[in-house]
Amino acid sequence: MLSRRAGFVSRIATPSSRTALLYPRAPRALGSQSRVSFSNGRLPGNSRRPELARLTALQTSRLPKQWPPILRSVSTKPLPAPTSRVVRFVWRSAAILGIFVAVSGGLLVAFFIYDATTYREDPAVTDIPVSELALNPRRGGPKNLPIADYFVDDDDCSENKAIKHKPKLVILGTGWGSVALLKQLHPGDYHVTVISPSNHFLFTPMLPSATVGTLELRSLVEPIRGIVKRVRGHFLKAMAEDVEFSEKLVEVSAPGPNGEKQHFYVPYDKLVVGVGSVTNPHGVKGLENCHFLKDISDARLIRNSVIRNLETACLPTTSDEERRRLLSFVVSGGGPTGVEFAAELYDMLNEDLCKYFPKLLRNEISVHVIQSRSHILNTYDEALSQYAETRFAHDSVDILTNSRVQEVKPDRILFSQKDEDGKVVTKEIPMGFCLWSTGVSQTDFCKRLAAKFDNQNNRHALETDTHLRLAGAPLGDVYAIGDCATVQNNVSDHIVSFLRTLAWEKGKDPEQMHISYSDWRGVAKRVKQRFPQAADHLRRLDKLFGAYDKDNSGTLDFGELRELLSQIDSKLTSLPATAQRAHQQGQYLGRKFNRIAQAAPGMTLNQVDYGDLDDAVYKAFEYKHLGSLAYIGNAAIFDYNGRGFGGGLLAVYLWRSVYFAQSVSFRTRCLLAMDWSKRALFGRDLMNF
Amino acid sequence: MLSRRAGFVSRIATPSSRTALLYPRAPRALGSQSRVSFSNGRLPGNSRRPELARLTALQTSRLPKQWPPILRSVSTKPLPAPTSRVVRFVWRSAAILGIFVAVSGGLLVAFFIYDATTYREDPAVTDIPVSELALNPRRGGPKNLPIADYFVDDDDCSENKAIKHKPKLVILGTGWGSVALLKQLHPGDYHVTVISPSNHFLFTPMLPSATVGTLELRSLVEPIRGIVKRVRGHFLKAMAEDVEFSEKLVEVSAPGPNGEKQHFYVPYDKLVVGVGSVTNPHGVKGLENCHFLKDISDARLIRNSVIRNLETACLPTTSDEERRRLLSFVVSGGGPTGVEFAAELYDMLNEDLCKYFPKLLRNEISVHVIQSRSHILNTYDEALSQYAETRFAHDSVDILTNSRVQEVKPDRILFSQKDEDGKVVTKEIPMGFCLWSTGVSQTDFCKRLAAKFDNQNNRHALETDTHLRLAGAPLGDVYAIGDCATVQNNVSDHIVSFLRTLAWEKGKDPEQMHISYSDWRGVAKRVKQRFPQAADHLRRLDKLFGAYDKDNSGTLDFGELRELLSQIDSKLTSLPATAQRAHQQGQYLGRKFNRIAQAAPGMTLNQVDYGDLDDAVYKAFEYKHLGSLAYIGNAAIFDYNGRGFGGGLLAVYLWRSVYFAQSVSFRTRCLLAMDWSKRALFGRDLMNF
Repeated sequence: MLSRRAGFVSRIATPSSRTALLYPRAPRALGSQSRVSFSNGRLPGNSRRPELARLTALQTSRLPKQWPPILRSVSTKPLPAPTSRVVRFVWRSAAILGIFVAVSGGLLVAFFIYDATTYREDPAVTDIPVSELALNPRRGGPKNLPIADYFVDDDDCSENKAIKHKPKLVILGTGWGSVALLKQLHPGDYHVTVISPSNHFLFTPMLPSATVGTLELRSLVEPIRGIVKRVRGHFLKAMAEDVEFSEKLVEVSAPGPNGEKQHFYVPYDKLVVGVGSVTNPHGVKGLENCHFLKDISDARLIRNSVIRNLETACLPTTSDEERRRLLSFVVSGGGPTGVEFAAELYDMLNEDLCKYFPKLLRNEISVHVIQSRSHILNTYDEALSQYAETRFAHDSVDILTNSRVQEVKPDRILFSQKDEDGKVVTKEIPMGFCLWSTGVSQTDFCKRLAAKFDNQNNRHALETDTHLRLAGAPLGDVYAIGDCATVQNNVSDHIVSFLRTLAWEKGKDPEQMHISYSDWRGVAKRVKQRFPQAADHLRRLDKLFGAYDKDNSGTLDFGELRELLSQIDSKLTSLPATAQRAHQQGQYLGRKFNRIAQAAPGMTLNQVDYGDLDDAVYKAFEYKHLGSLAYIGNAAIFDYNGRGFGGGLLAVYLWRSVYFAQSVSFRTRCLLAMDWSKRALFGRDLMNF
Repeated sequence: MLSRRAGFVSRIATPSSRTALLYPRAPRALGSQSRVSFSNGRLPGNSRRPELARLTALQTSRLPKQWPPILRSVSTKPLPAPTSRVVRFVWRSAAILGIFVAVSGGLLVAFFIYDATTYREDPAVTDIPVSELALNPRRGGPKNLPIADYFVDDDDCSENKAIKHKPKLVILGTGWGSVALLKQLHPGDYHVTVISPSNHFLFTPMLPSATVGTLELRSLVEPIRGIVKRVRGHFLKAMAEDVEFSEKLVEVSAPGPNGEKQHFYVPYDKLVVGVGSVTNPHGVKGLENCHFLKDISDARLIRNSVIRNLETACLPTTSDEERRRLLSFVVSGGGPTGVEFAAELYDMLNEDLCKYFPKLLRNEISVHVIQSRSHILNTYDEALSQYAETRFAHDSVDILTNSRVQEVKPDRILFSQKDEDGKVVTKEIPMGFCLWSTGVSQTDFCKRLAAKFDNQNNRHALETDTHLRLAGAPLGDVYAIGDCATVQNNVSDHIVSFLRTLAWEKGKDPEQMHISYSDWRGVAKRVKQRFPQAADHLRRLDKLFGAYDKDNSGTLDFGELRELLSQIDSKLTSLPATAQRAHQQGQYLGRKFNRIAQAAPGMTLNQVDYGDLDDAVYKAFEYKHLGSLAYIGNAAIFDYNGRGFGGGLLAVYLWRSVYFAQSVSFRTRCLLAMDWSKRALFGRDLMNF
């Protein structure tokens, strides 16, 4: 009724004007609305459609012209057929797709515009001041070699000039420790020089993935110069040869302009040794027939030789027996590296090989892992290593435990295996490829350093105190981090220093005094400070006190205390040689050096007990284990201090995301993402060059 | 008035129900609308707002629930403040962004789901039938070597079985020609075997970009096995040594299981030689001190040694003079490869070096191009090569024209230069890097083939007829394409065959007969068919006829005709040794082989004149030049038969898109795009390993 009248009025008013169209419809709309509302009697709360109708109507009238039509259409354009749901749905989807395409296109254009700005048109050659000393360094030191006091880029810019005369911090190596240190360091505090034979940081945990093309080589490495640049440091692609502690000189060598080796000195005020480790040959013969997996170039070589074997296996002249040999891949060492390589290799053979190579190959392939212990991944929780073993069994990867490699011949590997009843039998596997990944040992450089000090007794690594200072070297001069170093757990050796203050208070000789429970608590506090790792073993002080107070005198004498402490020593295990530890040590040193730089000016005024600067400004290094994880072939395992879990694809994604997060730079993250997508889209390319 | 009444009515009707809210607003909407309409009196055409108001109202009521709220909001939700344009704009933008993010997120999830499906859980080991002959091939041939009649994957699947006994097509090489042929070939027509020492196809035009890291190595190569798979072919990573034409056997060699070279035969029915070429030493001494740029591994070596030089230049022990030498890069050869390398190298040094290396280096860098001709890029239009030269001059790249390299010493390069007044002076440049890219010459394999036939007189390449058949080899057995081959332009030699039909019709001896103008036109037609390249020179038949009808007899005698044809020969130039030509030849062969396979059954019935199967089923090869282009350092030049243009960044984008389009596979296209983005975001990484 209302609608009819409205229509009537309008028709009288202006027959041909827009109102004529306007009126008869609008009320009908209302009519329909009201009918709807009466029929299902909705709450007033959500009954605001007519208002929004007005609004949207207004919108169209005022919709800015600059918006692309697509947007106007999504918002308010009438639908081709208001009746059909499908049409509406299609219409919406099209509009949404339109928006998506439009925005994507916009972004693409924006990127191209950005790209266009990244090309440098004009050669920028400006005059650079270079100090004479940088061009012709003075000679000196025990061997009278050139001494690089200054570098050619010391005067490149004001920032460089500013730090030209700051204390010289020399970092040997570009591994996890060094990079963590560099990223932690405040720019401008030190004149930093990084020395390493490789000009990149390698993201070691994912190295096995690069051996078969799951990841590309360059996605795992980051140019070290980019990282050094942050602290305005200098990089020398050279190798550390020796250290003259008395004169604070590092002797380094590098291939000169004509390829011949050149030696020179780099002076330091603080030296950080992070040169890592080398593969441990375990005195096995024939390692020249093995591949190793320490550096990125190793990954390339492995990838090439794996594919070479596949190609050779396809030749008509290759006998069946030879083919089986070529396709027998042996991994010696059941640690994370070996296991992950085996897993990656298996994935490649299982997923990509069949696509392009004769199916026969797939049948004749065998992967063997030779492990000296009774389980692979023996540093992990036993349940996990068993999970891994069952996993490999399902993938028909042959796990040989309790086996020691005797010799590696060009075409086969000999090893001795201990069976259940302890009998040792020597076996051999014909093989076309062997990876040697059985632990690490000390570099010659580290051996040379260790030989200079009597208190360096660890055959495997440089010993440092809990402040990561090289034991024996002048205090606060030389630090060692990462795989090349180990932290001493000699609590009992420091008993006297712990008792010193106490003795001083009581005016007694430490050796003679008796320690009451309250004294003991003080000592324990000191021990925890100095040896954070010992804290776990110093929880129940009363129990300990009771246990070692043999004569129940209510006090501990010197002997009893020493016994207590040495018993704690025995409980302390040495830290694992992992990227994680190196990273934490690097961060620790970075923070400490920042502190020292801050404190330096005021230091002279400070009263520091027993002049230990490091101890005064910063706490001792404490290792926090964040757990370990490993990839085991379309599955991954996670271990956090015994509590761990393993799983399939989801675990793999988790494993990836952990490393994705830990990855060193935005660049590497992008590349990792690209590589993973690549694998999904195109598989691993089986080319070798 | 209307609105007021409507409101009044409603208020009476149901004070508290939603209609109470509904009515008083809607009519006001109408009121406002009509007021608007009267004020600006718009045309009825675009006055449909109330209707759409009703529609949108309906929409909201019927909007499917599964749509995310964001979409509902964009479409119809009322705006926070209908008055403010800014608010509306922000609101819209937010909504659009929301849609974009939502869709992107959806796509990402979809990709992950897809990714999850690409991992193969279970080892798929099925029993594969392999014929005894494939495992133990028979011996035979002149050298009594194993003959690979069958392969281990001949029985892999039904498709393979089906083509097991089809005619054997053996393709030597995996370059442009071979790949174009493989992509053109119908699967199932031939038993295809591809033999090459490299298991990848290299996208040669962009190789220079890979030498400095603008592109990554693997973005330029495509696994050949993927391409061969399409035609169910076989690939052998081996090297062609020789061909026994009489017994239809290719002798190939490959490193065996223990690395020693093994020789064997591969039988063929049709053989395609596309082995390419080798670098031309031009008898210059000391090329062992040079780098070459033929294969992808060369690019890797170049990249490494360039960066090695940069690193060495930073050492404090490197003297100023030595530094300048290390940073002097010499390119010998001003062809496209040399020029593009120089351009890429310069870009890298100009754009990325300064970011990470001491500024001093930038000042001491020099790039030299030694060109024997008077201009670089002398195959291009002169204006373009001059454009390129000015471009390089602006980039302070040193172009040395009219210069011939005499000798390359480890630390310097000696060359003789002819100055304006033709005087030749010998100069030398101290250099730390030299690229040798001065044309190509024949491989030993091709030399060996050519030596077998008297009519192979071309020192630089294998001669073929216009059907790309190796001249001298049994007709229809052996074809040669790409850089290793050249097409004969010996029109006059075929004069008899042209006249044969004519002579047969007239029952005369060709040598004696006189050719009228109409006859001549017939002959000319024949010539065009047989030598498509000659068509250009056979446009004005009457003119030619007149010119060579010396005695104005109105007819040509044999001698006059021969003279005419040989004059055409002289005008025909040999085809350029480019990827473009190889590609067209490959496509041509592919199409022809498809035809032959179709025609084969009916062939016996067909009446073919002078039993030339190829000629009968398919036209002769005609090269269509699509122009050439070159990158010259943040600029590019395009040349299409003389008409060409050069330009800056836009031209570079065009240059890229051309190659992007030509790129061999979806995979390589993705990788190229990734690499270009990478360069824009992170620059080229200056690492060598």
